[in-house]
Formats: sequence, C-alpha cells, structure tokens
Amino acid sequence: MRIGLIGYGYWGPNILRNIISHTDVDVSVVADLKLERLAALKKMYPTIRTTTDASEVVENRDIDAVIVATPVHTHYPLAKAALEAGKHVLVEKPLADSLNGAEELIAIAKKKKLVLMVDHTYIYTGAVETIKKIVDSGELGTLQSFSSTRFNLGLFQGDVNVLWDLAPHDLSILLYLTERIPTLVNAIGVSHTENGVENIAYLTLRYDDGLIAHVGTSWVSPVKIRQILISGDQKMIAYDDTEAIEKVKVYEAGYTVRTHEDKRRLYMDYRSGDIHIPNVGNKEALQGVVEDFVRAISKGSKPRSDARFGLNVVRILDAAERSLKQGGAEVRLS
Amino acid sequence: MRIGLIGYGYWGPNILRNIISHTDVDVSVVADLKLERLAALKKMYPTIRTTTDASEVVENRDIDAVIVATPVHTHYPLAKAALEAGKHVLVEKPLADSLNGAEELIAIAKKKKLVLMVDHTYIYTGAVETIKKIVDSGELGTLQSFSSTRFNLGLFQGDVNVLWDLAPHDLSILLYLTERIPTLVNAIGVSHTENGVENIAYLTLRYDDGLIAHVGTSWVSPVKIRQILISGDQKMIAYDDTEAIEKVKVYEAGYTVRTHEDKRRLYMDYRSGDIHIPNVGNKEALQGVVEDFVRAISKGSKPRSDARFGLNVVRILDAAERSLKQGGAEVRLS
Amino acid sequence: MRIGLIGYGYWGPNILRNIISHTDVDVSVVADLKLERLAALKKMYPTIRTTTDASEVVENRDIDAVIVATPVHTHYPLAKAALEAGKHVLVEKPLADSLNGAEELIAIAKKKKLVLMVDHTYIYTGAVETIKKIVDSGELGTLQSFSSTRFNLGLFQGDVNVLWDLAPHDLSILLYLTERIPTLVNAIGVSHTENGVENIAYLTLRYDDGLIAHVGTSWVSPVKIRQILISGDQKMIAYDDTEAIEKVKVYEAGYTVRTHEDKRRLYMDYRSGDIHIPNVGNKEALQGVVEDFVRAISKGSKPRSDARFGLNVVRILDAAERSLKQGGAEVRLS
Amino acid sequence: MRIGLIGYGYWGPNILRNIISHTDVDVSVVADLKLERLAALKKMYPTIRTTTDASEVVENRDIDAVIVATPVHTHYPLAKAALEAGKHVLVEKPLADSLNGAEELIAIAKKKKLVLMVDHTYIYTGAVETIKKIVDSGELGTLQSFSSTRFNLGLFQGDVNVLWDLAPHDLSILLYLTERIPTLVNAIGVSHTENGVENIAYLTLRYDDGLIAHVGTSWVSPVKIRQILISGDQKMIAYDDTEAIEKVKVYEAGYTVRTHEDKRRLYMDYRSGDIHIPNVGNKEALQGVVEDFVRAISKGSKPRSDARFGLNVVRILDAAERSLKQGGAEVRLS
Repeated sequence: MRIGLIGYGYWGPNILRNIISHTDVDVSVVADLKLERLAALKKMYPTIRTTTDASEVVENRDIDAVIVATPVHTHYPLAKAALEAGKHVLVEKPLADSLNGAEELIAIAKKKKLVLMVDHTYIYTGAVETIKKIVDSGELGTLQSFSSTRFNLGLFQGDVNVLWDLAPHDLSILLYLTERIPTLVNAIGVSHTENGVENIAYLTLRYDDGLIAHVGTSWVSPVKIRQILISGDQKMIAYDDTEAIEKVKVYEAGYTVRTHEDKRRLYMDYRSGDIHIPNVGNKEALQGVVEDFVRAISKGSKPRSDARFGLNVVRILDAAERSLKQGGAEVRLS
Repeated sequence: MRIGLIGYGYWGPNILRNIISHTDVDVSVVADLKLERLAALKKMYPTIRTTTDASEVVENRDIDAVIVATPVHTHYPLAKAALEAGKHVLVEKPLADSLNGAEELIAIAKKKKLVLMVDHTYIYTGAVETIKKIVDSGELGTLQSFSSTRFNLGLFQGDVNVLWDLAPHDLSILLYLTERIPTLVNAIGVSHTENGVENIAYLTLRYDDGLIAHVGTSWVSPVKIRQILISGDQKMIAYDDTEAIEKVKVYEAGYTVRTHEDKRRLYMDYRSGDIHIPNVGNKEALQGVVEDFVRAISKGSKPRSDARFGLNVVRILDAAERSLKQGGAEVRLS
Repeated sequence: MRIGLIGYGYWGPNILRNIISHTDVDVSVVADLKLERLAALKKMYPTIRTTTDASEVVENRDIDAVIVATPVHTHYPLAKAALEAGKHVLVEKPLADSLNGAEELIAIAKKKKLVLMVDHTYIYTGAVETIKKIVDSGELGTLQSFSSTRFNLGLFQGDVNVLWDLAPHDLSILLYLTERIPTLVNAIGVSHTENGVENIAYLTLRYDDGLIAHVGTSWVSPVKIRQILISGDQKMIAYDDTEAIEKVKVYEAGYTVRTHEDKRRLYMDYRSGDIHIPNVGNKEALQGVVEDFVRAISKGSKPRSDARFGLNVVRILDAAERSLKQGGAEVRLS
Repeated sequence: MRIGLIGYGYWGPNILRNIISHTDVDVSVVADLKLERLAALKKMYPTIRTTTDASEVVENRDIDAVIVATPVHTHYPLAKAALEAGKHVLVEKPLADSLNGAEELIAIAKKKKLVLMVDHTYIYTGAVETIKKIVDSGELGTLQSFSSTRFNLGLFQGDVNVLWDLAPHDLSILLYLTERIPTLVNAIGVSHTENGVENIAYLTLRYDDGLIAHVGTSWVSPVKIRQILISGDQKMIAYDDTEAIEKVKVYEAGYTVRTHEDKRRLYMDYRSGDIHIPNVGNKEALQGVVEDFVRAISKGSKPRSDARFGLNVVRILDAAERSLKQGGAEVRLS
C-alpha cells in the first residue's frame, strides 16, 4: 500500500516515522509548504519524493491513501479533494472545523466507499486503553465526573481557538470511555490576541444521569498540565499524561451517603483505600492509529476513531462555539 | 483581652491553639454542641470553661470578643447575636450565607462601632503574601488569567454547596491580589446527593480588561489539588499549596505576538526561562489572623480581611448562585 | 500511672502531647535546662510541674516511669540514675552512646525487673508496619538490597556524629524487617566542622546470604530525603517518608537470569508490572510507642523496641564507628 | 568527512541519528553482530552499507573516523585496531576496561597523531554545563559533598560490573566540575548473579580538602533514580536528570558554625532561602559530542572529553575495583 502525506510540520514527522516502520506500507510523496522542512526530510530519507503542492499528493495515481496533517481550517478542503480523487483519508483531529464540513466529508466517503478516519491518537494510548478496560469492567461504579485540564505555554493557533485545538483530545477520551453524548454544553473563553481567537477556554458538559465533564484548555500556562480525574461512586481514577511511569492511578476511594431526616446534615462515610497503578506499557499510540487505518483499508474493518466518532467530537465543539458566543449560556445538544 | 469561641469542630482547635499562644489574649469559654469534643478540650486545657450553649458565650460579660467557627448557615445568627451583645466578632469564612445577611452584619457592626472581621486564613499565608508582593511589583505584567483548582475527597457540607464551602479561599486570594471586582460571573455545578446540594462546581469570572478567573471546586476527587496558576503577559506564577517547600514558583515565561497582515497566521515568540522559588517561610497563617483581629480591637487598625472584604466574597458567591440556577448563564455584577 | 519527662526540646513536646492524650497516664513533672521552654509548657499546660533539675524527676516518689528525651551523650547517665531509683525507663534512640553503656543499662534493668525500652518511633509507623507485613508474607522473595538515604539540612549534633544521630532510624527499620544481624560493617564519613564530628557518613552492611544494606546520612543536603528502597528477587518496595499519601509503593518488578554457557553474556528477563500503593493510615507512631511502654509496665508485655532491640542498633553503630576510624575497612560483627 | 560506526545496539542508533543530522559528516558503513538490527537500519536508511564484520569498518579506506559503541570489554581491541589502521576514534564510555588498556590506546593515538575521544555524553548536557558555570562562578563556596545515586532496573551487563557500567557517568561529571583527582577511594559491592559480577555497588571518594563524593549504582532498583546533590558551604545544587524541566535547582541554603568553648555544643545558624531553577535548554547532548569530535579532527581542537579525561575516569574505576576486592578498604590514588 502506498501513502501520501500532506503536512510535515509538528506532527507529520511522527506520522511518517510510524508509517515507515509499518512493514506493509510505503510513503511515496510528502507535501509541505516550507522548503526547509522538505530538505530536512530529504537528508533523513533520500528516497521519498517531496513537493510544495498538495495536489501532487491528492492527484497522485500511485497512492492509495492520503494522510492530512495540516492546520485545522485546511482539513475539510484537503480531505474533500482526496476523497473525491478516490483516496482513503486519515485526517488529523478534528475531522473538520465545522459541523457542516464534517458531515459533508462523511457523505462523500460513504458514497465513494472510502475509509475516512480521524487521528484521535489519545484513544490508542496504553493509558486510555487501560482506563477503558477499567470503566467497562464497572469497578468505578456510576460515573459522576470527568475533569480534564490541558494547559501549556503555546502553541497558539491562528485559525482555530484553543477549544478546537486542544479539547478534541479530551472529548475523544470522554466519548471513547462513556460511549454517550452529553445533553448540555457550556463554554466560556477569552482572547488575549488581536485576532479575537480564544486562547483560554473552559468547557462543561452535563449528562441526563448526573455525569458532569469539565475540560479546561489554555495556551497560556506556566506549567504543562495534562490531567484527567474520573470519579465513579465506587472508585476513582487519576490520569496524568505528563508522568513517565505512573500515568494511571486507580483509587479505592469514595463515599457513601447515609440518609438522615435533617437535610441540613449529611451523614457521609468516606473511604480512603489502596491505590493501584496498572502497567500501561509504552507502545507508541500512533503506531496503533496507522495500523487501524491500514487494516480498515485492507480488511474493511471499522477503525476505533472512524469518521462518525470524529463527527461527535465536532458536534460538541460546534455546540461549545455557540455557547461561547452567548456568554457561556447552556446549549442543548440535539 | 478575653475571647470566647463558638465551635470546636474541625477548625476550632486550631483557632484555640493560636489564641492561647498569643501573649495578650486569653480564652475564657468555648461552646460546642458535642460533649466529647468539650471533654477532649478539658483534658488538654483544664482551666477553660466549656458549654454546649452558644448564648453562654455571646452573653458572657467577661469577654470582649467572640470567634464564630461553626457551620456556614449559623454564621449570620451567631455573629448578629454577638454584635448585638456588644462583642467584637471574628467569623469563619464566608461572612454569611446570603448577601443580605452579610450586609446586615456590617450595618450592625458599624452602628455599634465594633470590629467585624472574617477569617480568610489564606490571605495571611506566607505564600499568598509573597505572591501579593510579586503582583504589586508589576513584574508579571498585565494579569491575564487566574486558574484555581480546589479538589478533595470530602468533607461534604450539608448546609451550603461546594462553592460556598471552598471558593471563598480562592475568591479571597483573587480579591487580595487584584483588588478588583469582576464584571461577569458564570457558575455550573452538579449534585450527586439527594439534598440537591452541589458537590462539584465550576466558577468563571471575567473582567473588563480581559482577565479571566476560573475556580474549580469539588468534594469528590481522588486526589487533593490546591493549585492556582496566574498568568501575566510578562511572567507567570504556579502556586501549589500541597507542596511543603516549593509552594510558589515564578516562571520567566511568556509570549509576544508579532503582528501580521494574515489574521489566520499568528507569529508568536515564546519565552521559556528560569524559574524562581521564593522562600515563603513557614509561619502559621492563623496566627496572623488572630493578631490582626486583636490589633483591630486594641489599636483600631483596619484588618486585612475586614467585613467589607468578606462582603465582596459573598457578592461573588451570590452572583454565582444565581448563575447556577440559570444553567450557567452569565450574571453581571453591579 | 504517673510519668516524668526529662528533656523538652525538639521531641519532648511530641512525647508530652501523646502521653497526655493517653487515658491511663498522667505527666507529673517535666525537666529541661531552658527556662523559656518550661515557660511555654506552663502557658499550655498550667497544671504540670516544671524544673531545671533532672534529679527532681528521677528521684520523684510520685512517679512510676521516666522518659529520657535529651541529647544522646546523656542517655546513659540519666537512664542509669532513673533505673537505679526504681523507675521504668523509655529512652530516646539510640539507647546509649556506647556499647558498654547500653549493656550496663540492660543489666541494671534486668536485675531491678524494670521495663527499659527505646523510642525507635519509626517501627511503630503505619508505613513500616505495612512493609513488615509484606516482607513477612514472603511476596518480595529473597531480600537482596536495602538502600536508605536520610539527608537533611541540619540539625547538627554536637555530641554524636551523623551516623549515631540518623542511622538508628534506618537500622531499627532494617532490624525490624529482617530480624537478622549483618556480618560485615563498613562506614566512611567526613567532618566539615572543627570538632571533627562527622556530618556526612555512609554505612554499608553485608549479610552472609548476599543481602546488602546501605545507609546514607547527611546533615548537609539541599533537599530532605527519607527514602528506602528494598529489593527482593520477586518484588520491590520504595518507601518515601516525605510523601503524605503515597509513602509505600510495591513494585511487581524484577528479573530472572537465564543460564548461559558464555559467562560474558547474561540472558536476563526483566519484569515491569503494576505498582500497588497500600493505604498505611495516618495514626501517630509515637502514640504506639507510648502504648507499648505503658502496656509493658502494666501488663508485663514485651515491647517491640525493647532494650535488646535497641542494643542491636548500638552494636552496629559501634562497629560502624570502628570502621570509620580505619578508613572504611570492613569490621566483622561477632 | 566519512565515519564508520561499530555497534548498533542501545546507543548506536542515537549516535547514527546525530551524525546524520550533522551537515559536514556522512556515515558510510555500520557494523553490528545482529542481522535484525542491520535490517531495521536498512529500512530507515537504505543508502548506508551494513556489515556483521567490524574489520570492514576498521579497514575501510573510505572512512576517516570510527565510532565504537559496543560492549565495554571490546572497547580496547576495537579502538586499538582502528587507531592502528589510522582512523580517528570516538569510543563509548569508559575508554577501556583496564588502566593498562586505556594507557596503551592513548600512547598509540599520540604516536599516530590521531584524535582519541571518549563519549562521556553527560558532560555535554545543558544541565551539567549549567552546573559547571555555577561551580566555576564560585557561588557555591567551598565544595563539601557530591552525592550521586544512579539506580535502575537493568540492564545487567555480562562483561563489566555495575560500577564500570554506570559510575563513568558520575565520575565524568565530578571530574568535569571539580577538575581534581580524589585521594582515597573506597568501594563495596555485591553480586546476585552466578557470574559474580557486582550488580549493586557503592563508591566513595575523598579529597584532601574535605570534599567527599559518593556514587551509588544499582541495576536492581524498583525506581529509576538519577540524582546528584552538590553541597558547597554557601549554596547547594540538586540535579535530577529524570525531571523534564526542573533538572537543576540551586538552593540558597547553608549553615554557619559559630565557635564555642564547649565542643559538645555546636552553635549553628541555618539558612533556608530561595531556590533558583536555571533554564538548561533542551539541546541533545550527543550532538555536542559529535561536533566536538568532528571539530577535533578538522580543526585540531582539544575535545572536552579527550582521552586523558577518559583515562582519569578509568583510574578511579581501577582503584575502586581494587577496593572492592579488599572488602571496601581505602585505596590511595597515586
């Protein structure tokens, strides 16, 4: 199988390395607008063709599939062109920068019977796969809260705000773990740049059964934080992606409410027990993404982060955008 | 000076210890509803009078001042009774559980020329005092964000929600550092208990000049988090109150936006420099609170967390409560 | 039961607080050389008698037992005087500053049928008790190494070196866990003060079966370290006493050697599995020490850190001292 | 300049990547005994020649220099063969597995006027370079102690013990910082494998002026530790190489001894001040090693870790080996 790659910036080199190490796939051509990036690529891999013209990838007859690793606002036009040229497409997260765009891409892929997949890398990590198993086992009890903080200094995007840039990570994890869509969406943010693009934003999702999910995103933080806390009524999980070894901690902690006539008084029993740190391995998640994509093309299997999965992420982001514009008022997801 | 203490539960023993170690003050009488607490007190300090009747403190002719360290919904009636009996009052945070109640207490204290002070302990800590000096020096540049997370497992309160219980800490720090009132308040929360009292809530404050403050509060977290991140456009601060030594870190980190015609492209220069950890000492903050209270009574000085300071905390909580009831819609502070 | 306390410096107040909270014991008299310490005691506990003369404790007819919490070089004379006056004695670690002294105290206590116990507080902590259970269960396999680092800035002692000051903690833990005496002792140290007292020292103990124990002690460290790593051939433990919650971590980690003809090549299988953090509780260890002492007096039970246990600590320190003087050469324990 | 690489195991791929990214150098040929490693190399870099025969590198007329990244016991014969074939040589640390071997290599290189350099990567890291500047500035005052812990689980070496494997890192840092040779060497270790090769060992170095250096090395630890504590009498440094950002911390901490007639009493003033974390950057150290090697060949400059530097590391290891065999007795370095 022959693959073309569009975009060799921040993430592109990682994708390229993972395709090269996959035994069944070859990379024929890589496109990027910056010549110095292509020159660096050439020094490492002298046999790969390079170009500054994305259409030389999209229209290339020798390739079967295209990977789009470019800025968010170009996902829709590039993925559309590739699908229309009959190529299978793996697009960086999010699938598109608008709900309409995402739905149109899905329609084209369906009509042309092509694989359309989104690179939500996080749900292929050993850490998230481990948490998924724990959630599915039921040992957390009823999920009550999901609280994620994704802070860093930079990289400011020019074309999408911090929610569209960072929250897809958290939303993909949340959707993968819960397999449910929230009912109410609130988002508040602020921009400190002249272009009015929000660089700090807070997103809250509420579900009918009491589950609350909160995602804090910032490009302006002194420290890098990638922490997700998940509370069930039986056990709780803390997932810190900045940790090298102890990424996932499972807490035998919780509380039981004892009923009481006087509502002013709560009688609670708190449990504080052992902590368990499962070994989540250290395989590279992107390898799993590439394998899932290749398998979907060659075997017709359904990828974990298929286009419909990616669409749900975009649906929530679209609702969040509307809440942002209404000063944080709640938006109901249909 | 003779002081009476009402409430010998979680915080009361700390207050008592700090009063006893103050050379100019004596504790005459302590009231609490639980006999076993009073018995424990008697074994440690056999010379202090104990009672289960708060009015024996309030109406005690031998005492000059009353400290109220009881559940939040009793702050208003107990402080009111003490003020009306002519006692100076130090009340645990928040000042009262309603805006009206807080304003009424202030009016009585003013009329009777009595000291009314709120125990916002945090703004007396070495850490917050150190941050205050840094903020006042201007070295952070323009403040852009204040992001606080105050999570723990327990203690659920029965009479007020998690915002009224925990956010007073963050709001007092925010008000002390910025000396400004926000314009817009949003709050979203959820309750997992039958009494409908929110145990997880997120509060967002926006200011006219672009400053955004966010406070996450939870009684249901696997890990204890007490972290505040403050970003200016020149430097940033991370304050982690769970750290024993390295509580406050000052980051020579930031970014500069270079203007560009194409708004889709942001040209940013990121700075990542040294980190400085000031020595914040290890004095007990509560000692400072007690000294400030005693000095206000004996010398007529204005305490740092005087009633007006405490009122501003309650004003924000009151607006947050209204936002909570409107599904997180923004509430404008008058 | 009535107890007298000699020494109200660093550790004395903690002992006093724990005796007071014990229901069956009372403190009659406290001796210390510093008047300001006694005055502070009087303000807190006005009913306790104070004195600057230790003999007023030792010879006091109203008391049954004496606790010695003074500098190390005074342990022997004070404990001896108290035993000869017919008092049960609990002495701070180490039991004495010489092997002869320790043995003489044991002989007197035996002859007079008095309880003589050493306050090795660490072996009463929840953390060490938890580790003891794990070691005894055999799940670590054969113990291979015990590596302890006990570093801090200060407090320099004038009368004993850093080994006699700090290593008793590690040696008591090691002896409690292994219940075995090492065969070979090496110690190396250095003094940076004019009195020639070592302020940094390293102690290595070897056992006949291959177990190696290493204890690093320093009064001159930028950071406080209290870490013990224990490796068995099946599992391993890391114990970090500076952690608030995650003090003890049990690692499902290890290795297996596959035999091979070529000795230059080792074929190893490494295991890296889950980590388990047992809940070690948060009871105060000193309470356990006091209870053990009181029970030994009233019920005749054998305390965990009895005089013989304390003697073994002194035997190793004595051998270490001899090695120190021979430039680190190995000293064989008889 | 054309370079040949012998050894493509753990470290070889890193070396190769850093040579490739150097603009003035090319890699012609890589030798390794394992075919699967060479196949992986071929998939990544199809233009590089591979061989299982080291002599095809050593005797290759097209190359100017050889890099030896093989097990320790082969350093001497391979480096000797390469030097004798007229190639400049960069050898992995340590320079050789014996003092005689190291001296012989130096003699050959000198006679043939070839560059002989040792890859002590650590002294090219931003962290160590930063510490070197601080030490050289004198702000630490007189150096009193250097305490290093280098623990991990695996990788057991078959041909050299843990000291020869890990301590070269610490010794190179120590020598680079102090530019002095210690006087006394003690080493104690233990082997838990049948081949008798020590897998845990402790090394202590003493200097005439009171400086003490301690290096703990272990292949059998539940946690990975790479920590070096450096104490001067004015300031102290903690260097934790497992930290991503805060690798180097400078402590304004120390103590002053006040003289006193009674030697039993030390009057000390302890200082506990601010902590400073310099930004040490994130350049790859190996890039610096490669540049230093290329510059030495092309410009005749003296590399930081030249053969004489590497020899001093071996001299200490050789003394340590002798101490190990004498049960830890002190060995005097001539």
